[in-house]
Amino acid sequence: MTAPEETVLLQGHIIDSLILAKVLDTILMMGGTFDLQDVRIGATRDAPSHARIVVRASSGRQLAEILRAIQPHGATVEREEDCRFEPAPAAGVFPEQFYATTHLSTEIRLDGEWVTVEGIEMDVGICVDPAKARARTVPMAAVKEGDLIVIGRDGIRVTPLARPTERDVFGFMESVVSSERPHQPVLADIAARMQRLRARHRAGEADAKILFAGGPAIIHAGGREALAWLVEEGYVQVLFCGNALAAHDMEAALYGTSLGYELSAGRSVPHGHEHHLRTINRVRALGSIEEAVRSGLVRDGIMAACVRQHVTLVMAGTIRDDGPLPGVLTDSMAAQQAMRAHIPGVGLALLVASTLHSIATGNLLPATIPTVCVDVNPAVPTKLADRGSFQAVGLVMDAASFLSELARALGWRP
Amino acid sequence: MTAPEETVLLQGHIIDSLILAKVLDTILMMGGTFDLQDVRIGATRDAPSHARIVVRASSGRQLAEILRAIQPHGATVEREEDCRFEPAPAAGVFPEQFYATTHLSTEIRLDGEWVTVEGIEMDVGICVDPAKARARTVPMAAVKEGDLIVIGRDGIRVTPLARPTERDVFGFMESVVSSERPHQPVLADIAARMQRLRARHRAGEADAKILFAGGPAIIHAGGREALAWLVEEGYVQVLFCGNALAAHDMEAALYGTSLGYELSAGRSVPHGHEHHLRTINRVRALGSIEEAVRSGLVRDGIMAACVRQHVTLVMAGTIRDDGPLPGVLTDSMAAQQAMRAHIPGVGLALLVASTLHSIATGNLLPATIPTVCVDVNPAVPTKLADRGSFQAVGLVMDAASFLSELARALGWRP
Amino acid sequence: MTAPEETVLLQGHIIDSLILAKVLDTILMMGGTFDLQDVRIGATRDAPSHARIVVRASSGRQLAEILRAIQPHGATVEREEDCRFEPAPAAGVFPEQFYATTHLSTEIRLDGEWVTVEGIEMDVGICVDPAKARARTVPMAAVKEGDLIVIGRDGIRVTPLARPTERDVFGFMESVVSSERPHQPVLADIAARMQRLRARHRAGEADAKILFAGGPAIIHAGGREALAWLVEEGYVQVLFCGNALAAHDMEAALYGTSLGYELSAGRSVPHGHEHHLRTINRVRALGSIEEAVRSGLVRDGIMAACVRQHVTLVMAGTIRDDGPLPGVLTDSMAAQQAMRAHIPGVGLALLVASTLHSIATGNLLPATIPTVCVDVNPAVPTKLADRGSFQAVGLVMDAASFLSELARALGWRP
Amino acid sequence: MTAPEETVLLQGHIIDSLILAKVLDTILMMGGTFDLQDVRIGATRDAPSHARIVVRASSGRQLAEILRAIQPHGATVEREEDCRFEPAPAAGVFPEQFYATTHLSTEIRLDGEWVTVEGIEMDVGICVDPAKARARTVPMAAVKEGDLIVIGRDGIRVTPLARPTERDVFGFMESVVSSERPHQPVLADIAARMQRLRARHRAGEADAKILFAGGPAIIHAGGREALAWLVEEGYVQVLFCGNALAAHDMEAALYGTSLGYELSAGRSVPHGHEHHLRTINRVRALGSIEEAVRSGLVRDGIMAACVRQHVTLVMAGTIRDDGPLPGVLTDSMAAQQAMRAHIPGVGLALLVASTLHSIATGNLLPATIPTVCVDVNPAVPTKLADRGSFQAVGLVMDAASFLSELARALGWRP
Repeated sequence: MTAPEETVLLQGHIIDSLILAKVLDTILMMGGTFDLQDVRIGATRDAPSHARIVVRASSGRQLAEILRAIQPHGATVEREEDCRFEPAPAAGVFPEQFYATTHLSTEIRLDGEWVTVEGIEMDVGICVDPAKARARTVPMAAVKEGDLIVIGRDGIRVTPLARPTERDVFGFMESVVSSERPHQPVLADIAARMQRLRARHRAGEADAKILFAGGPAIIHAGGREALAWLVEEGYVQVLFCGNALAAHDMEAALYGTSLGYELSAGRSVPHGHEHHLRTINRVRALGSIEEAVRSGLVRDGIMAACVRQHVTLVMAGTIRDDGPLPGVLTDSMAAQQAMRAHIPGVGLALLVASTLHSIATGNLLPATIPTVCVDVNPAVPTKLADRGSFQAVGLVMDAASFLSELARALGWRP
Repeated sequence: MTAPEETVLLQGHIIDSLILAKVLDTILMMGGTFDLQDVRIGATRDAPSHARIVVRASSGRQLAEILRAIQPHGATVEREEDCRFEPAPAAGVFPEQFYATTHLSTEIRLDGEWVTVEGIEMDVGICVDPAKARARTVPMAAVKEGDLIVIGRDGIRVTPLARPTERDVFGFMESVVSSERPHQPVLADIAARMQRLRARHRAGEADAKILFAGGPAIIHAGGREALAWLVEEGYVQVLFCGNALAAHDMEAALYGTSLGYELSAGRSVPHGHEHHLRTINRVRALGSIEEAVRSGLVRDGIMAACVRQHVTLVMAGTIRDDGPLPGVLTDSMAAQQAMRAHIPGVGLALLVASTLHSIATGNLLPATIPTVCVDVNPAVPTKLADRGSFQAVGLVMDAASFLSELARALGWRP
Repeated sequence: MTAPEETVLLQGHIIDSLILAKVLDTILMMGGTFDLQDVRIGATRDAPSHARIVVRASSGRQLAEILRAIQPHGATVEREEDCRFEPAPAAGVFPEQFYATTHLSTEIRLDGEWVTVEGIEMDVGICVDPAKARARTVPMAAVKEGDLIVIGRDGIRVTPLARPTERDVFGFMESVVSSERPHQPVLADIAARMQRLRARHRAGEADAKILFAGGPAIIHAGGREALAWLVEEGYVQVLFCGNALAAHDMEAALYGTSLGYELSAGRSVPHGHEHHLRTINRVRALGSIEEAVRSGLVRDGIMAACVRQHVTLVMAGTIRDDGPLPGVLTDSMAAQQAMRAHIPGVGLALLVASTLHSIATGNLLPATIPTVCVDVNPAVPTKLADRGSFQAVGLVMDAASFLSELARALGWRP
Repeated sequence: MTAPEETVLLQGHIIDSLILAKVLDTILMMGGTFDLQDVRIGATRDAPSHARIVVRASSGRQLAEILRAIQPHGATVEREEDCRFEPAPAAGVFPEQFYATTHLSTEIRLDGEWVTVEGIEMDVGICVDPAKARARTVPMAAVKEGDLIVIGRDGIRVTPLARPTERDVFGFMESVVSSERPHQPVLADIAARMQRLRARHRAGEADAKILFAGGPAIIHAGGREALAWLVEEGYVQVLFCGNALAAHDMEAALYGTSLGYELSAGRSVPHGHEHHLRTINRVRALGSIEEAVRSGLVRDGIMAACVRQHVTLVMAGTIRDDGPLPGVLTDSMAAQQAMRAHIPGVGLALLVASTLHSIATGNLLPATIPTVCVDVNPAVPTKLADRGSFQAVGLVMDAASFLSELARALGWRP
C-alpha cells in the first residue's frame, strides 16, 4: 500500500517569518514525513520565496489532520478549486463539515475568484453570499437556517502573519515577558504605540482605537487613578469589563473603599462588601452609570472618565455579580456580540488582570491587532497563547504597577 | 466633648471560638477603644461565657462602622428593639438603608419575637412578611417594588460559627493548605466526609448532597476519568460548571482531545479548537446533552455520568464561550438563580480549578456548609477568603492530581 | 485513670493581643481540653489581665506537646523552677534534650533569678554561663564540647509579642497583603518607617539600621536604579545578597544587560550569559568589588552605591553561582554567621524577590524586628510565615515595581 | 561607508531542526540583515542541507554580537582558522577575551584538526593542551595561572541539537507543559524512559544513570513514600539535594512530622521545628547519615533507601540550613564540583520542586541529556529555559502528585 500523500505550496516570506520551518515541524510532530521539491529562496529579505512540499502520512485521516494543521500557516493544497458550502441545517447549527476559522486573514475561492472573508475572528464559521461574491464570519449561535456555510478545506487560503516592520516589542511574536525580564522597555514600546494611536485617532484615521479589557484587581491593587487618567487623556476608546470593575470603581468614588479595603489606608474593614452593595443599589436607583456621573454622585474614577470622554463601554455580566449595575449585559451571548461589534477599528488591545476578559477578548481579535496581556500570574498569558492568541505579548506584573508605570511613561504626574 | 460610645453584649462560646478576641481586635484595628465590663467565663468548655463591652470611637460615623464590623461576630447592641423595614422604592432597588446580609445564620426581631431568616446567603437583602412573621433573603435584582426590606441594624442578630465538633480538616477554619503542607490527610478527611454523605444521601437524609463546581482545567490536565468515576459512584449530586467543561468533556468522548491536546498522547495538535467546535455543533444539532448521551454520541466522561446518575447540572454561560451547548444558561442572573435554587440540601461543596465558579458558588453558600477550594494557583483560595467565604479550606494542587487522589481514596482503581 | 494535667499561667495584655484566644485554640487543636480558673480581665486597655488554665490531655506525651506549643505564647507552668542544663557531648552536638529557641524574647531562671537570653533567634540552643549568670544563643554547628546547654522546658519563659503601638501596617500582624489589596498604603507605611529610621540612624541612635535582602530578579525586572538610589540616599545600611545580584548589577554597569536581556531595550540577546561571565572575570582580575568601583570599572548601580555609602555587604554563595565574585562567602555556614553578626541594630528588614535570602534572613531575625517580604509569587510570604516568621508583612508585587514605588514615595524622581 | 558583513555557513539538518529559521530570526531580531546564497535543501528528511548566509550589521560591534549569537546554532564563519588561546593571567581568572561555552557539543580547531571539548557544560572556559591535542572545560574558579584558555571565536564550532529520533515528550523541545495540558502522557513518556534506562543501567551500559535533584517540598507535600520507592526500585542513581530534604525525610522517619506538620494527620503542630532540629542533632551525634541508617535510627524514607541502594548523594549547603547534617557540603564551590563530577553517565535528569537545585543542575547538564523540570510554580521551568536549559521539559505540578503518579506508572502500589 502506498502512503497517502498530498502536495502543498507555500509562498511569501516563508523563510524569515519562520513559516517553512513551522510547517515542516508540524508535519514531523504529527507523525508525517515530507519531501521538499523546488524550493526557491529569495536572496534578499524582500524577495519572496516559495516551496513545494510533498506531505506523506500513514493514513488518510492522519494526512487530513496534517493538512488541517498546516493550513493556518498558509500551506495550500496545490490543486486550486472553489470552496464548497452547504446550507445550515437549522438555526444555530452549522453543517457537519463546516470550516472553522483561524484569526488570520482568510480568503475563499468563489467562481475562480479569491474573496476576502469579512470580520475575521477565530473559531467561527464562514457564511457565503455567492450572488454578491461576498463572505463574512458568523458565530455558531448567530447562524440562520439555510445560511450558506463554507465546508471542507478546498478553496480556502489564509495569509500567515508577516513579521511587523516596526522594531518594537510587538515585532517579537510569541514571547511571554516573565517577571524576570525588564519591564521598562516593554512599557516604553506600549506607550509609544499609544501615543501614535492617539494622534492618529484624533486625526480621524482608521484602526487607531485603543481597547482596554480589565478586571477588578485593577481597583483593589491601586491602579484606579492611573487608568482613570489614561481614559481622561484619550488613551482608551473602548473599555470591556464586568460589573465588578465598574462597581468597585464607583465604590471608591462614594466610600473610598474597594472590596472592604480602604484604598487610602490599606486597612481591612470587615464586612466591607456593604459599600459595594450600597454603591450598586444607588446607581440602580438612578438608572444608569451616566446618570450617576451626571448627577454628581460619582465624581472621579474610571467610570466618570469614560462618561466624560464618551468611551465605548461594554460591561458583561457573570454569575458572581452583585446587583448588577444598570448597563451590564447579563446575557453572555449578547455581551459577546456587543464586544465583537466594537473590535473593528481597534489598533491596540490591552488585556489587564482578568483571565475571563483577556481570553474572551483574545477570541475576538484578529491576529493582526497588537495585543498585550498583563497579569501577576504567569499562567494567564500562557493560557491566552494556548488558546491561539499567539500575537499577544505577555507581561507578568501586578495591574496597579503596570498601569502606574504606563501612565507615568505617558506623562501622568500623580 | 465626650467620645461616642455604645455597649454591646457577647455571649456563647466566645472564648474558645476566638470570638471575644476577634471582636476586641476589630475594635482596636478600626481605631476604637473598649472597656470590658462584667466578663464571665465558663469554667469548662461547655459552659457558656458572656461579656459586656463598652465601645468608644472618635466620631459617630466611626462608632457606627465598628458596630457594623463586629456585628457578624454576634456582638449585639444591648438595647433590644424590633428590626425596622421599608418598602423597596422600585423593582430591583433596595431602600437606601437596607441591611446587607452575611452568610451566617441570622435572626430578626419582629414584634418582640426572634425570627430566623430563610435562605441565608451573603450580600443580599432581607424581605419581611410581618403578617406571617417570616423573613427570607432576596437578591437585589429580584426585589419587587413595595417588598418590605430590613433596614438599619437594630433588631438583627447573627450566630457566629461554632467550632465544629468533628475533628477533621473542616474543624480548623480559616486555613489555607499550601503546596508545602501534606495533602494526603486533607484528602482523607474529604473522602471520609464524602462517604458519610453518600451513605446519608442514599438513606434519604437531609443536607447530604455533594456539590461540585469546576472549570475546564479539570479536563485539560487529565482529571476527567476520576471526576466521571466520582459522579458514577454517587459522590456528586449537583454540578455547577460552564460551557467549557461540558464541551471539553464531550470533545474527549468524541475525538480524544481537549483544547487541541490529545489526552492520550500529550501532543499539541495545531488548530485543535476545531474538535471543540465540532463537538458543540453536533450536540446543538441533537438539541441537548441528554440526547447526545442517549443517542450514543457521547458514551463516556462526566456529562455521560451526570445524565446516567441524574445529577443536577447547572451550566452558566460566559463571554468566552463557543456555541454554547444547549442547556447553558447564557443569562448570568438566571444562572445565578438556578445555582441558588440548588444550594439547599448541600452538605459539602468542592470548588475545583475555576476562580469564577469558586467565587460565584462561595457567594451563595451559607457559612455552615463545609467547603473545599482547590487550585494550583495559591491566589484563588486567598481570593475566596478575601470575599468572605472564610469557612473554605484551601488546597494548592492541580485539579487532575486532586481528583485522582480523591477518587483513589474512595476506591477508584484506574 | 486520671487524665494528665498541668496548670499554666498567662499574664499581660492577653486579651487584646489575642494571646488567651490563641492559647486556648492551640490546646483544643492539639486534642487537649482546658478549664479556665481565676480569669481576671483588666477593665481598660492598659490594665493587665491574667488567667490560670488547667490543661488536660489524653497522654503524658500529648500534654508535653501541648505545653511546648503554648509556651511560645508566654504560657508558663505554674511551679517556678530553675532551668536545667547539660554539657554538650561533642563539638557541634547539643545534649539530647536541648531546648530549641523561638525568635521571641526569652528568659531563663538561674539560681532563682530570671536572666535574658542574648542574641535571640529561632531554632538554636541556649548556652549558659552560670558563674556570670549569663545566657546566649548558640547555633548547633558552633557549640563546643562541654558548653552548658539548656535542656527541657522548666525555668524558661518567653515574652509574647505585644501589639505594636504604632498604627501602621506593622501593627496588623500575620497579614499577607495579596495582589488584590491596595499596595499604596503599605508602601507609604514602609516609607514612613524608613524615613524615621534614617533620621534616627543619622542621629546615632540604636536599632535604626535598615536591612535589605534581595535576589537577582531585582535587576532582571528593572529595579536596579531604584535600589541604587535607596542605597545612595542612606536608606540601606546592611545588604544581604548572593553572587547573582552583585554580578548582574555590575554587568548592567559594564554592558547594559542582565542575564542576556538589554535593560534599555528589552531585547533578548542570545547567549547573553557571556556578559555575566566577563563581568565576574574582570572583577576577579581586580581582586574585589571595592577595587572595581574605585578603579572606575563600575560607575553606577547598587554595588557602586554600597561601596560609596559604606554599606555592610554580605554575599552568600550558592551552587548556581558562576565565578563567584571576590567577597562571596562560598561556605554557607560562614555566610550565615556573617549575616547573624549584622542583625543586631537592625530596625527594619526588607526581604525582596528571593526565597532563599528571605527565609535565611527570616530565620535570624528576632520577632521584634518589623519585616516586609515582597515577591511576585504569593507562595513566598506564605512560606516565610510557615517557617515561623509570623511578624513579616507579605506583599505580592514584582520587585521592580515595589522598589520603584518605594523609592518614589521617598523622593526619587527618575 | 559599507556595512560590515561576514559570510557564515550552516549545514546539517538545518531545515527540519528549525536551525536555519532560528539563525535568520536571530539576525533580524538583533537588528541585522542577511542575504541567502547557495541554499541547497535535501529533498528528503535524511538528506542534509546547507546554506551560505551573508550577515550585515550597522556596526562592527553589532556584527560581532550577531555572530556570537548565531554561533550556538552551528553557524560558523566561513574562513576556517585554528582557535586562539592565551595563558590565564592568574589563578581563578580567565584571559580577558576568553570564550564562554554553551552546553552544546563543541569542537575547537588545533593545528588544522577539529578536537572535541571534553566535559562540555555551559558558561565555563575551554582549557587547551596543544601538545596532546586535547581540550576540556574549566570553571572560572578552577583555572590555574598559565592554563591555556581559548579566546575569541575563530576555530570553534558547536553542533546544534538534532531533533531526537524517539517520538516521546523529549522530542518536542522548548515546550513548557502548563497546568492546563494533560500530564498523564508526559508522565508515561518519562516512566518509559526510566524503565529503559534502568534496564540498560543494570546491563552495565553507559549513560544510563538517572539523576534526581529535588527540594524539601517533596517531603512537605507528601511525596516521600513515592520517591523512596523509586530509589529502592533502582530508578535513581544520583541524588542532588540540600540539607532540608534529607533532614525532613529523616524527621519523618523519627517523628512522623515535616516542618511541624504531622504527615499522617495534616495538623499543624506549633513549634514543630523542634523535631527538625532534634533529628539533625541526633544524626550529627552519630556522625553520618549512613550510620543513622545502619544503626536503625532511620528505618524508612529516602535517605534509608539511598544508603541501602548505594545511591550517589550530593548534599549542598545553603544559608538557610539548620545544623547542617553530616555530609552536607557547606562550601558551594565544593558542592558544585561534586555535582559536576557525577554528571557524566547521566541519561535522564529529573529536577523537582527546587528552583535552586533545578537551575544549579541545569547549568551543569549538557544539552543532550533529556531533562524534566517539575514545579507547582510555572515560573520555575520558565526560569530554567531563560537560563539556557532549553532542552528541559517543564511540568507544572506539585511535587507530591508528580512523584505519586510517576511511581504508580512504574508499578508502585501504595
